[in-house]
Amino acid sequence: MFSQMVKIGIADTCFARVNMGEVAKAAALEYDSGVEIERYTVPGFKDLPVACKKLFEEYSCDVVVALGWVGKEDIDETCAHEANIGLIQCELMCSKHILKVFFHEKEALGDLDRQSEICKDRVQKHTVNALKLVEGKEVLSSWAGEGKRQGYTDAGKIK
Amino acid sequence: MFSQMVKIGIADTCFARVNMGEVAKAAALEYDSGVEIERYTVPGFKDLPVACKKLFEEYSCDVVVALGWVGKEDIDETCAHEANIGLIQCELMCSKHILKVFFHEKEALGDLDRQSEICKDRVQKHTVNALKLVEGKEVLSSWAGEGKRQGYTDAGKIK
Amino acid sequence: MFSQMVKIGIADTCFARVNMGEVAKAAALEYDSGVEIERYTVPGFKDLPVACKKLFEEYSCDVVVALGWVGKEDIDETCAHEANIGLIQCELMCSKHILKVFFHEKEALGDLDRQSEICKDRVQKHTVNALKLVEGKEVLSSWAGEGKRQGYTDAGKIK
Amino acid sequence: MFSQMVKIGIADTCFARVNMGEVAKAAALEYDSGVEIERYTVPGFKDLPVACKKLFEEYSCDVVVALGWVGKEDIDETCAHEANIGLIQCELMCSKHILKVFFHEKEALGDLDRQSEICKDRVQKHTVNALKLVEGKEVLSSWAGEGKRQGYTDAGKIK
Amino acid sequence: MFSQMVKIGIADTCFARVNMGEVAKAAALEYDSGVEIERYTVPGFKDLPVACKKLFEEYSCDVVVALGWVGKEDIDETCAHEANIGLIQCELMCSKHILKVFFHEKEALGDLDRQSEICKDRVQKHTVNALKLVEGKEVLSSWAGEGKRQGYTDAGKIK
Repeated sequence: MFSQMVKIGIADTCFARVNMGEVAKAAALEYDSGVEIERYTVPGFKDLPVACKKLFEEYSCDVVVALGWVGKEDIDETCAHEANIGLIQCELMCSKHILKVFFHEKEALGDLDRQSEICKDRVQKHTVNALKLVEGKEVLSSWAGEGKRQGYTDAGKIK
Repeated sequence: MFSQMVKIGIADTCFARVNMGEVAKAAALEYDSGVEIERYTVPGFKDLPVACKKLFEEYSCDVVVALGWVGKEDIDETCAHEANIGLIQCELMCSKHILKVFFHEKEALGDLDRQSEICKDRVQKHTVNALKLVEGKEVLSSWAGEGKRQGYTDAGKIK
Repeated sequence: MFSQMVKIGIADTCFARVNMGEVAKAAALEYDSGVEIERYTVPGFKDLPVACKKLFEEYSCDVVVALGWVGKEDIDETCAHEANIGLIQCELMCSKHILKVFFHEKEALGDLDRQSEICKDRVQKHTVNALKLVEGKEVLSSWAGEGKRQGYTDAGKIK
Repeated sequence: MFSQMVKIGIADTCFARVNMGEVAKAAALEYDSGVEIERYTVPGFKDLPVACKKLFEEYSCDVVVALGWVGKEDIDETCAHEANIGLIQCELMCSKHILKVFFHEKEALGDLDRQSEICKDRVQKHTVNALKLVEGKEVLSSWAGEGKRQGYTDAGKIK
Repeated sequence: MFSQMVKIGIADTCFARVNMGEVAKAAALEYDSGVEIERYTVPGFKDLPVACKKLFEEYSCDVVVALGWVGKEDIDETCAHEANIGLIQCELMCSKHILKVFFHEKEALGDLDRQSEICKDRVQKHTVNALKLVEGKEVLSSWAGEGKRQGYTDAGKIK
């Protein structure tokens, strides 16, 4: 599928309650069996920004998926905000894309099956998005304005 | 209209429910049929900052319009805040303007026609603003303090 | 008044409902008729940070007044917060002062005359502050701890 | 345990009500008796980011644990947010991990024994995490998605 | 007390209702009569970050105390947040400590004597902290975890 080898970084956490890294790995290989993968596991999602920086600098990744699981407390949401600011800052420093894939427990409070389901769907779709972004800046343009959603069904385009 | 060729970057998303990129493209060409356009489509608006950076660095754009559609949930507003911090940071790193064009669903909750209308008006006006900024730093000075609005009618100058 | 020529940048917006740029220009010339002025008008206050950066880099300004008018909605306050973070970041990148002069509609909700009055007073006082900062780091020290206010009467020193 | 000498930085505060630095020191030595340690004590947790930067730049640490104790007031939470943004920014500037170990008084309001207990458990576990991160990017991968918690019992993996 | 000359920067504001700069100056000289002092007065506390940067770059200060007085309105708290983010960013850019000394009016609403008292105590203690930080990274370690407070009596260590 790619004219040259693509390397995707997968950064995940011990805090998550689903093995998001394995889900991403499987999705990447299903999309392109020849893709190279670098895994980086950190304690919590606030450790993701520098892990992504190292995946770019030390492991020459072309793109990274940063996988975070956000607890239900207010402090968790604040931490997610801090992590996202750091991830965007890292993208700007490296001029490469990081797909910021966060599942928030409050999306399905108390329903563990649904939590797992939303989380996996989001990881899978964004892993494919990551690989498409490497292919070119207009590869996703056919989906522009289509109301695409990850973790849920698409909202769709307004007629 | 321009003494030399101008290149505008148009960064849009798959998350949006209106094809904001196409609206911007049409508005740019209507303002100046000779303008060069580079399109970049990303999954969601948090992916816009690095896309803009690449439009400046890799595609030599003179200015970029970053087009975001913000969902109605609190988390969407938080993400929009993160994206805007990143977009301003990108402008400072590159010393070039990015017009930060965000439509928020809560501006017209549940009224899809009105959402589309506000969104398109904002994209059109800011695309023209982007091209005017490239023409010179005082091109917009005749409108200074005039209470200009995008998406709505102007608030006007206080007499 | 200055041993060498001083150049002040005046960055203002089309969003404002008062021509803050003209108010600043008059105040600067009243303080020092020989001051050089560079005007830069942008659509909204989130466009001010990079305009200030360009005023320093491309127009060699010694100091800039960044003039913003903040609407009454929550989203406007969020945007003002983003702009201010960017303006401070710009100051740190350039090692030069930007006077961050923002009028908020909620300071005098619905009273347009009072809005205009507060806004103009703040612009005038901060334009003078900007020029004093260029004169030297202890020029304002005689006012230190004096409870100075812009837009309102001074709070004064606690006896 | 390490093929080459590892140096861990321990940054703590006078504001804390538990000697978090000593707890970290003991945990590091228990994990690896040969580890080198650099201690840096600052007044409050907002002073931690630059202390970490100096531990990397001037003391050549491989990793740092930044230990903060957050008071119960809203202003303390805001300060913690500012400190965390700074710590992540420092990680990105230095491309090295800082474990951001913050105890918040509101986790156990008024119960000093419980406060001390949560705090110590979190410091101990994250000190070990810090040393594991230096060993390699996949050392923690066997715990990925396991719902690991510091200060509390693990949430565990969703079946 | 110091083996070589130490230079402290004192950055204060005209907004404050107490001459915090003079309080810091007296405290610095009382701690070490030979210390060198550079004063920098700005209009408001959002002007402090770049003043600190200039105190490091243009005046070769070893450390700076940034002295801010925060009004009682919500907008003042937001501005304090912006200033603190900028001050931490400045510390990271310069790899030097800035003691961020902010008094908030809401700590003693309406009681001017108490406001002055808290403010002065905080300035005095943090000026000494600043000079101790220059002496070495473990000078404050004997106070680590002691629950030190500035502006109030110490919270103390948890037994």
